[in-house]
Amino acid sequence: MSEKKPLNIGLVGYGFMGRTHSNGYKRVNDFFPDLAHRPVLKAICARNEERRTAFAEQWGFESTESDWRELVKRDDIDAIDICTPNDSHAEIAIAAAEAGKMVLCEKPLARTAEESAPMVEAVEKAGVANTVWYNYRRVPAVTLAKQIVDSGKLGQIFHYRANFLQDWTISADLPQGGEGLWRLDVDAAGSGVTGDLLAHCIDTAIWLNGSISDVSAVTETFIKERQHTLTGKVEKVGIDDACIFHCHFANGSLGLFESTRYARGHKALYTFEINGADASIRWDLHDLNRLEYFDHRDDSTTRGWRNVHITDGDMPYMDKWWVPGLCIGYEHTFVHQVADFLASLDNGTPCNPTFRDALETTKVCDAVLASAKDRAWKDV
Amino acid sequence: MSEKKPLNIGLVGYGFMGRTHSNGYKRVNDFFPDLAHRPVLKAICARNEERRTAFAEQWGFESTESDWRELVKRDDIDAIDICTPNDSHAEIAIAAAEAGKMVLCEKPLARTAEESAPMVEAVEKAGVANTVWYNYRRVPAVTLAKQIVDSGKLGQIFHYRANFLQDWTISADLPQGGEGLWRLDVDAAGSGVTGDLLAHCIDTAIWLNGSISDVSAVTETFIKERQHTLTGKVEKVGIDDACIFHCHFANGSLGLFESTRYARGHKALYTFEINGADASIRWDLHDLNRLEYFDHRDDSTTRGWRNVHITDGDMPYMDKWWVPGLCIGYEHTFVHQVADFLASLDNGTPCNPTFRDALETTKVCDAVLASAKDRAWKDV
Amino acid sequence: MSEKKPLNIGLVGYGFMGRTHSNGYKRVNDFFPDLAHRPVLKAICARNEERRTAFAEQWGFESTESDWRELVKRDDIDAIDICTPNDSHAEIAIAAAEAGKMVLCEKPLARTAEESAPMVEAVEKAGVANTVWYNYRRVPAVTLAKQIVDSGKLGQIFHYRANFLQDWTISADLPQGGEGLWRLDVDAAGSGVTGDLLAHCIDTAIWLNGSISDVSAVTETFIKERQHTLTGKVEKVGIDDACIFHCHFANGSLGLFESTRYARGHKALYTFEINGADASIRWDLHDLNRLEYFDHRDDSTTRGWRNVHITDGDMPYMDKWWVPGLCIGYEHTFVHQVADFLASLDNGTPCNPTFRDALETTKVCDAVLASAKDRAWKDV
Amino acid sequence: MSEKKPLNIGLVGYGFMGRTHSNGYKRVNDFFPDLAHRPVLKAICARNEERRTAFAEQWGFESTESDWRELVKRDDIDAIDICTPNDSHAEIAIAAAEAGKMVLCEKPLARTAEESAPMVEAVEKAGVANTVWYNYRRVPAVTLAKQIVDSGKLGQIFHYRANFLQDWTISADLPQGGEGLWRLDVDAAGSGVTGDLLAHCIDTAIWLNGSISDVSAVTETFIKERQHTLTGKVEKVGIDDACIFHCHFANGSLGLFESTRYARGHKALYTFEINGADASIRWDLHDLNRLEYFDHRDDSTTRGWRNVHITDGDMPYMDKWWVPGLCIGYEHTFVHQVADFLASLDNGTPCNPTFRDALETTKVCDAVLASAKDRAWKDV
Repeated sequence: MSEKKPLNIGLVGYGFMGRTHSNGYKRVNDFFPDLAHRPVLKAICARNEERRTAFAEQWGFESTESDWRELVKRDDIDAIDICTPNDSHAEIAIAAAEAGKMVLCEKPLARTAEESAPMVEAVEKAGVANTVWYNYRRVPAVTLAKQIVDSGKLGQIFHYRANFLQDWTISADLPQGGEGLWRLDVDAAGSGVTGDLLAHCIDTAIWLNGSISDVSAVTETFIKERQHTLTGKVEKVGIDDACIFHCHFANGSLGLFESTRYARGHKALYTFEINGADASIRWDLHDLNRLEYFDHRDDSTTRGWRNVHITDGDMPYMDKWWVPGLCIGYEHTFVHQVADFLASLDNGTPCNPTFRDALETTKVCDAVLASAKDRAWKDV
Repeated sequence: MSEKKPLNIGLVGYGFMGRTHSNGYKRVNDFFPDLAHRPVLKAICARNEERRTAFAEQWGFESTESDWRELVKRDDIDAIDICTPNDSHAEIAIAAAEAGKMVLCEKPLARTAEESAPMVEAVEKAGVANTVWYNYRRVPAVTLAKQIVDSGKLGQIFHYRANFLQDWTISADLPQGGEGLWRLDVDAAGSGVTGDLLAHCIDTAIWLNGSISDVSAVTETFIKERQHTLTGKVEKVGIDDACIFHCHFANGSLGLFESTRYARGHKALYTFEINGADASIRWDLHDLNRLEYFDHRDDSTTRGWRNVHITDGDMPYMDKWWVPGLCIGYEHTFVHQVADFLASLDNGTPCNPTFRDALETTKVCDAVLASAKDRAWKDV
Repeated sequence: MSEKKPLNIGLVGYGFMGRTHSNGYKRVNDFFPDLAHRPVLKAICARNEERRTAFAEQWGFESTESDWRELVKRDDIDAIDICTPNDSHAEIAIAAAEAGKMVLCEKPLARTAEESAPMVEAVEKAGVANTVWYNYRRVPAVTLAKQIVDSGKLGQIFHYRANFLQDWTISADLPQGGEGLWRLDVDAAGSGVTGDLLAHCIDTAIWLNGSISDVSAVTETFIKERQHTLTGKVEKVGIDDACIFHCHFANGSLGLFESTRYARGHKALYTFEINGADASIRWDLHDLNRLEYFDHRDDSTTRGWRNVHITDGDMPYMDKWWVPGLCIGYEHTFVHQVADFLASLDNGTPCNPTFRDALETTKVCDAVLASAKDRAWKDV
Repeated sequence: MSEKKPLNIGLVGYGFMGRTHSNGYKRVNDFFPDLAHRPVLKAICARNEERRTAFAEQWGFESTESDWRELVKRDDIDAIDICTPNDSHAEIAIAAAEAGKMVLCEKPLARTAEESAPMVEAVEKAGVANTVWYNYRRVPAVTLAKQIVDSGKLGQIFHYRANFLQDWTISADLPQGGEGLWRLDVDAAGSGVTGDLLAHCIDTAIWLNGSISDVSAVTETFIKERQHTLTGKVEKVGIDDACIFHCHFANGSLGLFESTRYARGHKALYTFEINGADASIRWDLHDLNRLEYFDHRDDSTTRGWRNVHITDGDMPYMDKWWVPGLCIGYEHTFVHQVADFLASLDNGTPCNPTFRDALETTKVCDAVLASAKDRAWKDV
């Protein structure tokens, strides 16, 4: 084990995602001992000196940088991990790729497909490893869902539905913009729930059910004006507070997606369900260790939704953790993504979702927002 | 009690709904002893003599008729109850109203708003009592939801979502048309899940959340051809197997509706949820004695969705039945509707939903189908 | 159908159980058309004239009696149905049997096995049809559980556990004795939760899992004194408010039973679970249309508790009611018991549980109470 | 932060618990940045050289020892953490305390109270910090339950019930004894489910509901003989496969406890419920981020069990982790216990449960086993 190859990480941003990624890097070798690489928290980069230093001390980063341009130049950095607001993803990623660094980018890839496409080009031209942190693919129950879908057990797919419901922005007193609240600022975020929450739902959907052909959407901004933290003024809210769309998948199934931050009683209720001719699947982030599975081939009098507790060693990733019945949590999805990224380096294969994969999700988001704006169906 | 006034019922149709209505009439006085009227099963009308006779014997109808035109003429009939396929609702209802009979009509009112409007005109012109059997309003949990909404406890409404999921038509071997299967025949039914299932969801939604302004829909017919029972030939399927739509309510909230008969694992899963600024409500037909209620005003550390078992005497209708904890079922909604209809006769008030109320639901259905056809938003 | 043989019922008692039984008699032929008999509500017997008359009018009894001894003598009565408090079951049942009447007795058979044994002797000596209303056997999900157990699918049984939790007597202001409250009066009831609630659990358990060999119990009376409605005085409470026992079944499995009226939050939560080597079963009265089933032979990665909605036509009794997904309720168990009783008359077979079957449950109750009193294991 | 005081840990044992504790030490400072101490993985001690070395490399221990007696002597070790089978807890703990080391001991304290009492004496005489890893106290939902109980919100307590159901030993092919299976060997473990699983339930119960006065128990060993891994021979199984007991708490409430490894369908289903006069609480390890709470003071028509997702920053420990709605898992309980242990060093207060606290649990276990053996109530 002592011969593990170090992978020097330069992390840009110390927010919520900075924490989840750092935790992923620090824990991965304890639980995935067979990997050939060992992530090293080489540098954390952020503008605010005090918080940057505190973050570096808390998490054990070896050094700090105030400007990501300097970070990208450093020879002792192998991979740039981007945890900044969405408006800076493209610039950093492209520079990193051009400097020959691997790039791990928080989702969504960028604010629009137009902004994202050059990122894909840059990493592919540079030939550097790249991945986007659509972490929910690595919930063991979701990975198992993927295996079940791929096995063909569901039969012809008729329906895919997903929603992501929250309630944290209902208060009109909540300001927009600035640290912790940039997701309400359309300039920083690009959109509201569409890029923040639906992007997750769409990424999972494409992974599980294939391409989306066309969409018809509606969005709503319930609170029209909020104080802006950066300007101190009451300003128009540019993001979508809620977004609903239906769509066709290329496989002929119907899709239905909803996201909102105004669903009182729901904290982060990401759920999806797939209905096939022979079997169906459901999952729910609030209870992430379970998968519900219905198989029409079961005997008719004892046929029902099976509540499967995804904690056994023969289930995805779970041989690495504890024993049957003992739950893991949200943060483990990031450990899994780091593990898979490191494994992809060992194997020389891409780590999904790549920038190219993630671009497709952003294209769907763009079509959704355009559909809502024009009140018309849009092809993806 | 012996002085209860008889209300002589002439029932047209002996299918599934013929049974639920008959049961409602027979049971109502046992459980609602204070009503001034007593329904009498005076006549059952249907074409098939053998089945008509058997039904009359089983349920205790005093007489039978083979032609509804004869039934409508009879002096000893006070009220015509229409349980036939949708294509005959209008003709029967109008004739009954013109003959001065009260009219109780199975939902939907008719196949289209165009076909339904003269029915409203007829009953209003005749001044006869009328109601449409949107029975789910009388699930005690749903009635309680109405009371909670009306109390203002939910605050500003942001979201209304409902779905009605079934899986009984997935097999391509199922024929269309004829006894028990007329719901798959577009001529008899008018539409597929839209008129059959979404009509229920829309009726409840309008009752709870007010008018729907505009809609954007998609429909799908997964199985394009089926053998027709009446012709014996394989014919094009004209109904919608699935329908999804989003909409705006007049109160500014967003609506989301989905119905399908291709959701493997769901038998008759009618669910709805309302999200308000202060509180939310959920309900599910598979577990109809419960209402889920979330109140944001609860203490933050013990705040959660409350699972309320609607079986106590202080809950709607439940003083008539058993004791706390003991469930009632689907059929009780029809007993409640009969009870409310009889009470409305006592009080001289309309029994909701009236034909006029039900017309609004049919208008929404029409807009939904038009939107799906034209791939465009439609005003209601 | 007109040739159905009338079965003239003489009902003793008009309380809660008087209603459930009357409803059962009135509805059975509507839903079970193939039975050869037709129950007739011939007479209702009770001391209170006003309420007796009101009950007769509401439910349609042809006549009334003030003294059960007169009822038993009447030639026009075929069957005596006993819905009185427990202390009068024995005397009425024995007299009825001696008069050659069929006897249907509310559970428990009587207050003790000593009091019950002569009842068994009487009906068997007279050779009259007899049954005890342990109605929960006829919940379709419970009947299905019986079929699954009998099929051997569970394998060797290791555990049986049941509880019946209520919370309606927590207030110290609730009096004991008299109409509606005789269950709190030890003279009328014989015991508290043991005879009232655990008797149900024990009946189901013996039916599903066979004989109970020995028991070790504890009881508690949380509120020691209550005003007595009949005497007007504060008197010692003689009943058990709560009772817990564990036991051995003859098949080697362990049993665990609990009942209380002090479990805040539970209205009538009767649940049981059986764990076998190969499969397990769970059921819950608050959600009575479901059975949960776990089969260890399912594929390990999609194995889980199956939530089976017991509403399809191939499930016990459900071909008589509605369509898949549509719930029935508590009262249907009584309709089913009437149907089975009538069928047993047609077939000349006993209708379970007979008086002899029910005696075994009362013997277990006696052993439980003796064990609690002596703080020692007791053989049944 | 750089001035954090190192706390040098010497861990004995590298099994399942060795992993959970190591993970706790490694993660604590990342999430609890305000603690004054920093655990250092100084030494891992175990007999098997190969596995010891591999474990040290995987987890980053600085050194290894083959004999715990040597570990205890080392000056560079501050705290001994005991993760060995139960039969060696006492000897190691006493030696460690006598050497002036802090002692953290896996539960149960030892095989019997007789064996455990000298451990308590030793740590108290030496005046060293000590704690026992009854980790479930630190599930945020369980800690919140403790806060709710202490607030008095539940009112007078009537009932406490808990069970811990597993199904992993049903196969007769499973051997007993040796690595990973010592829990089936009575010499190593002391008992079966009583010391392994019920000990957890009892620890929580005493913490939440106070002392247990007397118990009445039954145990069962379903599979009487198993091959012994160490001897290679089929030997009598000495452990209890299942144990059920009821009890009185000092506060007058009734307790009911069950544990088994033969409950097909349950992996590690630890649940408890407390019923008070005013409110009740339920919790379930399979869904550990939730607490169910029922408050009788809620309005009667919207009163129900509240499903509280314990993931918000104002809930115990949750300000350290993610955002509302995002789950944590099993392993976090160990991080919390390390955090609380470190905080107790900062504050100079004991870290519950201390050895003395844990002795009480072992006394209850002893009484339970004695009660089962003698078929008689036993005082604790």
